[in-house]
Amino acid sequence: MTAKNKQVYFFGGKKADGNAAMRNLLGGKGANLAEMVNIGIPVPPGFTISTKICNTYLNLGNRLPDGLTAQVDAALLRMARVSQKRFGDKKNPLLVSVRSGAAISMPGMMDTILNLGINDDVAQTLIKRTGNDRFVYDAYRRFIMMYCEIALGMSREPFEKLIVDVKKRLDVCYDFEVPAKELKTIVQKSKRLLTKAGFEFPEDPMDQLWGAIAAVFRSWQNPRAITYRELNGIPDGLGTAVNVQAMVFGNTGPASGTGVAFTRNPASGEKRFYGEWLQNAQGEDVVAGIRTPHPLEGRSKRSHALNRIMPDCYRKLHTIQQKLEKHYRDMQDLEFTIEDGRLWLLQTRNGKRTGPAAVRMAADMVKEKLITPEEALLRVSPTQIDQLLRPVFEPHAEKLAPKLGRGLPAGPGAATGRLAFSAATAVEMASQGPVILARTETSPEDIAGMAAAEGILTTTGGMTSHAALVARQMGKVCVAGCAAAHMDYRKQQLQIGNATFKEGDYISLDGSTGMVMGGEVSTTPSEVIRVLLHHRKTKHLSPVYHAYEMMMTFADQYRRLGVRTNADQPEQAQVAIAFGAEGIGLCRTEHMFFGEGKIDAMREMILAENTEAREVALRKLLPLQRKDFQGLFKAMNGRPVTIRTLDPPLHEFLPTSKKDIHALAKQLQLPPKKVEARIQSLHEFNPMLGHRGCRLGITYPEVTAMQARAIFEAAVKVAKSGIAVFPQIMIPLVGKKEELALQVKLIHDIAEAVFKEKGKRLKYLVGTMIEIPRAAVTAHEVAEHADFFSFGTNDLTQMTLGVSRDDAASFLTEYQQLGIYDRNPFEALDQSGVGQLVEMACEKGRAQKRSLELGVCGEHGGEPSSIEFFHRVGLDYVSCSPYRVPVARLAAAQAAIRHPGKRLHKVA
Amino acid sequence: MTAKNKQVYFFGGKKADGNAAMRNLLGGKGANLAEMVNIGIPVPPGFTISTKICNTYLNLGNRLPDGLTAQVDAALLRMARVSQKRFGDKKNPLLVSVRSGAAISMPGMMDTILNLGINDDVAQTLIKRTGNDRFVYDAYRRFIMMYCEIALGMSREPFEKLIVDVKKRLDVCYDFEVPAKELKTIVQKSKRLLTKAGFEFPEDPMDQLWGAIAAVFRSWQNPRAITYRELNGIPDGLGTAVNVQAMVFGNTGPASGTGVAFTRNPASGEKRFYGEWLQNAQGEDVVAGIRTPHPLEGRSKRSHALNRIMPDCYRKLHTIQQKLEKHYRDMQDLEFTIEDGRLWLLQTRNGKRTGPAAVRMAADMVKEKLITPEEALLRVSPTQIDQLLRPVFEPHAEKLAPKLGRGLPAGPGAATGRLAFSAATAVEMASQGPVILARTETSPEDIAGMAAAEGILTTTGGMTSHAALVARQMGKVCVAGCAAAHMDYRKQQLQIGNATFKEGDYISLDGSTGMVMGGEVSTTPSEVIRVLLHHRKTKHLSPVYHAYEMMMTFADQYRRLGVRTNADQPEQAQVAIAFGAEGIGLCRTEHMFFGEGKIDAMREMILAENTEAREVALRKLLPLQRKDFQGLFKAMNGRPVTIRTLDPPLHEFLPTSKKDIHALAKQLQLPPKKVEARIQSLHEFNPMLGHRGCRLGITYPEVTAMQARAIFEAAVKVAKSGIAVFPQIMIPLVGKKEELALQVKLIHDIAEAVFKEKGKRLKYLVGTMIEIPRAAVTAHEVAEHADFFSFGTNDLTQMTLGVSRDDAASFLTEYQQLGIYDRNPFEALDQSGVGQLVEMACEKGRAQKRSLELGVCGEHGGEPSSIEFFHRVGLDYVSCSPYRVPVARLAAAQAAIRHPGKRLHKVA
Repeated sequence: MTAKNKQVYFFGGKKADGNAAMRNLLGGKGANLAEMVNIGIPVPPGFTISTKICNTYLNLGNRLPDGLTAQVDAALLRMARVSQKRFGDKKNPLLVSVRSGAAISMPGMMDTILNLGINDDVAQTLIKRTGNDRFVYDAYRRFIMMYCEIALGMSREPFEKLIVDVKKRLDVCYDFEVPAKELKTIVQKSKRLLTKAGFEFPEDPMDQLWGAIAAVFRSWQNPRAITYRELNGIPDGLGTAVNVQAMVFGNTGPASGTGVAFTRNPASGEKRFYGEWLQNAQGEDVVAGIRTPHPLEGRSKRSHALNRIMPDCYRKLHTIQQKLEKHYRDMQDLEFTIEDGRLWLLQTRNGKRTGPAAVRMAADMVKEKLITPEEALLRVSPTQIDQLLRPVFEPHAEKLAPKLGRGLPAGPGAATGRLAFSAATAVEMASQGPVILARTETSPEDIAGMAAAEGILTTTGGMTSHAALVARQMGKVCVAGCAAAHMDYRKQQLQIGNATFKEGDYISLDGSTGMVMGGEVSTTPSEVIRVLLHHRKTKHLSPVYHAYEMMMTFADQYRRLGVRTNADQPEQAQVAIAFGAEGIGLCRTEHMFFGEGKIDAMREMILAENTEAREVALRKLLPLQRKDFQGLFKAMNGRPVTIRTLDPPLHEFLPTSKKDIHALAKQLQLPPKKVEARIQSLHEFNPMLGHRGCRLGITYPEVTAMQARAIFEAAVKVAKSGIAVFPQIMIPLVGKKEELALQVKLIHDIAEAVFKEKGKRLKYLVGTMIEIPRAAVTAHEVAEHADFFSFGTNDLTQMTLGVSRDDAASFLTEYQQLGIYDRNPFEALDQSGVGQLVEMACEKGRAQKRSLELGVCGEHGGEPSSIEFFHRVGLDYVSCSPYRVPVARLAAAQAAIRHPGKRLHKVA
Repeated sequence: MTAKNKQVYFFGGKKADGNAAMRNLLGGKGANLAEMVNIGIPVPPGFTISTKICNTYLNLGNRLPDGLTAQVDAALLRMARVSQKRFGDKKNPLLVSVRSGAAISMPGMMDTILNLGINDDVAQTLIKRTGNDRFVYDAYRRFIMMYCEIALGMSREPFEKLIVDVKKRLDVCYDFEVPAKELKTIVQKSKRLLTKAGFEFPEDPMDQLWGAIAAVFRSWQNPRAITYRELNGIPDGLGTAVNVQAMVFGNTGPASGTGVAFTRNPASGEKRFYGEWLQNAQGEDVVAGIRTPHPLEGRSKRSHALNRIMPDCYRKLHTIQQKLEKHYRDMQDLEFTIEDGRLWLLQTRNGKRTGPAAVRMAADMVKEKLITPEEALLRVSPTQIDQLLRPVFEPHAEKLAPKLGRGLPAGPGAATGRLAFSAATAVEMASQGPVILARTETSPEDIAGMAAAEGILTTTGGMTSHAALVARQMGKVCVAGCAAAHMDYRKQQLQIGNATFKEGDYISLDGSTGMVMGGEVSTTPSEVIRVLLHHRKTKHLSPVYHAYEMMMTFADQYRRLGVRTNADQPEQAQVAIAFGAEGIGLCRTEHMFFGEGKIDAMREMILAENTEAREVALRKLLPLQRKDFQGLFKAMNGRPVTIRTLDPPLHEFLPTSKKDIHALAKQLQLPPKKVEARIQSLHEFNPMLGHRGCRLGITYPEVTAMQARAIFEAAVKVAKSGIAVFPQIMIPLVGKKEELALQVKLIHDIAEAVFKEKGKRLKYLVGTMIEIPRAAVTAHEVAEHADFFSFGTNDLTQMTLGVSRDDAASFLTEYQQLGIYDRNPFEALDQSGVGQLVEMACEKGRAQKRSLELGVCGEHGGEPSSIEFFHRVGLDYVSCSPYRVPVARLAAAQAAIRHPGKRLHKVA
């Protein structure tokens, strides 16, 4: 047999025909089994029929090629040699499993037939050998069912019904409660079902084997598999391999057993072998949780730990786990079975882990020189870093709490507190203890209440609703759009499922899962937060904390993207700096107008009838804004501070209820009709596309003038006090270069005036947001007047997709279910659509002006897949909410490692 | 003097140094004067100083080059020889005018100094020669004023004040009422003003001349001129020429006179010399309308016609006008002056004309072989063709009508009728006579009322508001956004300015000017409409009608773009066909739902709680839609019919008032609360970007299924009756190819089912609108599933610019004033922004699928500059409202003539 003709790859004993590199030929599973054998791990022997044969089989019109029989026979002989059992043998029969396995994992279509090789004679022999007739008949019954379903294409249902009926009759719950006698009858009945359907039961194990192999090859073409490949872009020509492997049983007696193990602790990350096992049991017994498993290692003499019951097996297993971790260079999750005192490894794979564990393992493995810092950075997912920042429920308390319903996990972490149904009440109640603000949805008027609350619960709205957006920026826990909840403001009560809550009742939110729980569930801030923000430097920092520091240091060494933050308040800025932010990428000045006393002057400005009256109101706002900016400049201490001029439509600043309108009229000494009329005149059909952004600054240049003056006066004042300042003024919603040119000139004029008045000059930049498709398409023109671009990907997504974020709930969920969008485009940048405009704008902008600074300040600036895109198209920085800064630093480092080299202005 | 050194170009007598081709060197005016001289037209002699000298002057730091003096002196001598007057001469002095004149006309900066060469001595001589001291002192006074302003840079105001004061004192209105004595005093006072300002009056005519020449060159650099060049992209280096020309006077006695003439009638287009003149008068007397001018030609012996008073001059003028028209190959507008029996032509230019005249002249000139059909097509503007379709006010009645206020000219034409304030009333009143529907704004519910009305008046809304859009599609007269009008529904009255109207009062609208008039002003449909639509074929069709037919035939020969129409009703389709439409490019199916009985089933469908209930309602809609489609297919008789599936958000179909909601609830036997709740749940913040378009068809596939079934059943039925059908189903608001794929599959499945049921197959296409920026950017993907693209440039403009059409009024007007937008982007396509996406989509779409059909169905499809763009990027057709079809045919022909060659997939 030449290598060219090789169709079957044996594994088992000390040496396999294949190895890990032969994924394409052997599939992922086959290659991995071969690899384990090659490094000396005891694996039940078997063989892999290559993926090429799958294609041959299908091309021949479902016929297996010549020569395969001989190779399979040879492999079966080798299996017998290793396992000392023979397939179809009457004395010591070998059962096998038959599994598919493609080069790319296709979880939906992995057909498996277990216990193949059994027939009436073999069953009798096995009963004799194991003394366990229940086990043998159960295996027999299961084989018939799987074979009928997979190889013969029958429905599984009538077979399942046989055992269900028996359980009903006997009034028992679990399969294992069904006695051997009944199982034997089921085997007979199963065979009858098969005969009735016009088949004959293949008593010859070889017939079973060939039937199963052909069935697995055919399964490559079943509709489920075809659809899966289409959706995931897997080429049809890859084909699947077939893995035939000796069955081993952990339930053949007291010298047998089965278990799972991790090479390190998957919860804490501690470098310590960790696992569970059951004596005389099958793998599914461990998983099903019917019997309580025992630890692998124990000191007490009465312990059922593996090291005490089977010390020899334990030692072998321990050596193997060390070998596997070293070989795969990552924490492994193993499955093992001990059959009659002989240890077999059934599987090894990289183990899942919690955030703290991931960070600790990555750092430890670098220290152990097991992996490089680059690898370590790629090992930690951004979500796992984020977990380290979230407050946590005390685990015991959480378990006991009643689960009421689930919303969207909009702001991760744990929060518990008393319910407030309005922002005002939240502020009021906050002095007496933690508050959860519950609203149908939130608006900018609720800012103070949101700031005062521990957590925010809304009954409507999505992951990027106002509540979610502000919550993440503030680092608040938020469950958004909890459909099970109904807010009744009139009755002043919140209904969640069957539970009814009044203001002041306790409720708890898990913003990482979206779960809403009744009552008080105690929480605690995470260690990273305690150290970085609360400055509680304890002497005994945990290994996880040290690992976090190490990983962040690595991240900063590798990333090319700068990381700024979206912050409007000095406190937010300080938080962001503690998390490693290098500047402010977006200060939304409108948030400043909602503060104490500012909203009145703002409303007066809006209600002004002419430019003069407007300027009077603006003069009141000037010192307030200036003070805000001073605070920000001081906090940022010379780092760039990007300040966006007024953006939202004016009606957002005005009250809506009749009562509030009257109160405002009284306060401003205006007739209520006039206030109402002005509010009416500001009504817009599509406010997102209305009179806002720079359109305000152009029609009311005095507003931009006031804001520019406040910025420059604040900057000069702080600079004179010896603190460096670097303002970057950003014009929102620019669609044509002419708009930007007008605002830029106005700002330069104000800057000149202030510098002259105050006798001090400062460096500053004026740039624009790119958030309107037209601006992206004409970026070469816009760049003429801009020092920088900052992509406002929230609005750019809304306009490019023609989807209003606030209204998308009614169809976006269904769109995701239908596969129209893989991910919510407001969370992860739509790279092939919106991304094209971003890339185009980068290229056109830089072609016009090489020095153009490029950044992003949309929500996507804190989302890893988007950050990778921004790295690839060559942005200078991303800006995200303060609590996303560590995530962004890590994601930026990962992007740089995955896409090395300098700025790539062309996406591959 | 070599040609290279030539700086001054003489014209006059029989031969000029220059000609029409020397526009760059002599400016437009100078070249044209030279040209007239060359073809033997008597033009007052003069000379042009070339534009090169302008640059030299400016480059030398405002110094005239050496050698110029000699050339000017020589030219002055030649002038003296032709005119038999000498500049500065005491016996027979020559006065001259000095004018600027660039190669490209710059109307804002054309400085002119008249009567140059006058001083006290010259004035005395002139008085002696003319015997008209009033004329001479007036000329003198004006010269000083113009010289001071232009050459010395003084303000004109104090000079104007001198004459104003005198008129006040004498209590007279007009300058000509001021006697010579007073004018003489003004001359003296003017000189004193000049002296006080530190200047000295240049008594020497040569000093005057050099001062004026230098001033004209300097004016090239005045801020006004610089801005104008910037705005119009005129290179700074062009420079201006200076034209010095002998003054001639038509008021030197009874053998003098002045007049204006057209080579053909500018109102009717008739080929007949037409003009007016005044004996012993200046040009401004004709223009000012103080004396009533006489015709050029008259038969009565008592007539003051030129042919009777000065038959010789008349004959010369007649010969000249024929020569000029033949030379310039277009109707000429002439100015002439007769000085002492000698005829001089002062100017000739292409004459302005009405729409009917333009069409008739173009057609006639082709018949006369004066111009080619291509030239004829370029001679008629689309607006002029449009004028031929509009109803007209009877001129006398219009003159008498009280003008109340002006709105936007949203639907051209004249309409008069009785006021209705609701759609229902309009329908009711329409049986008794013409109705004008007045609303603050209209909505789809008003369709029936709009159809019943002659004209529509709204108090708010722009050129592309619902009212304007539907009015143009229906060919209705519409004045939109009349700010002077206030609608008070409660009082049931309409206030316009000081006038108050009740329902039933008469009002008249001029939709071509936006004027609103009180009372009944009688109108009449245009001849083209009478013939094409009303089939009133008279035996005596006017020459204009024949010309229209001829020009449209030419247009169809030359254009490459197809022209389809936007129509939902068979009647509209018939109108469009009469106008030459070649298919339907957009049938908005939702308009069909507002018909009698249909809205109920539609509402039932919307309020359905589940798919089953929805299908029950849809089954009621099916036969109604089918019938609509049958009508359309029959009317279009085999031409393509592009049908868009349901597009607007569902809430548009539901009532808004409490009363209507209750009525609906009762009718559907539902609790009002339920109806209210559903309406509430359909509320959207930005409905434009909400749950509409294919998003409806995807979340409620049964709706698309019903529509597809109605289309195919109707198509099969009509086809079986022997009439050809060609349905093209169009999916709106597609942003991702996956959306289109889902809807296309659904439609193909329904088509197959219907074809099988009915036993007949038909050719049909399924395509998509490109109206979301994402679809344009990913057009190569979308094209995979589309047979055609139709650009929905209305929505594409809204999203690309981030501007809601309904809300743009608050800033778009100011934006246009500030020059941010040259034209309203909802009227004329924003070529550099939205156009880039259109072009990109064309390229990417055709690259994916060569056979892809490309069209446009947005409002821009009927706008000439946009049509030219669509031709250039290679669309297959444009679609516009029925009444725009002739305009589109002409514009498409013009585009093809201006941009010959085949499809250009790349815009130059």
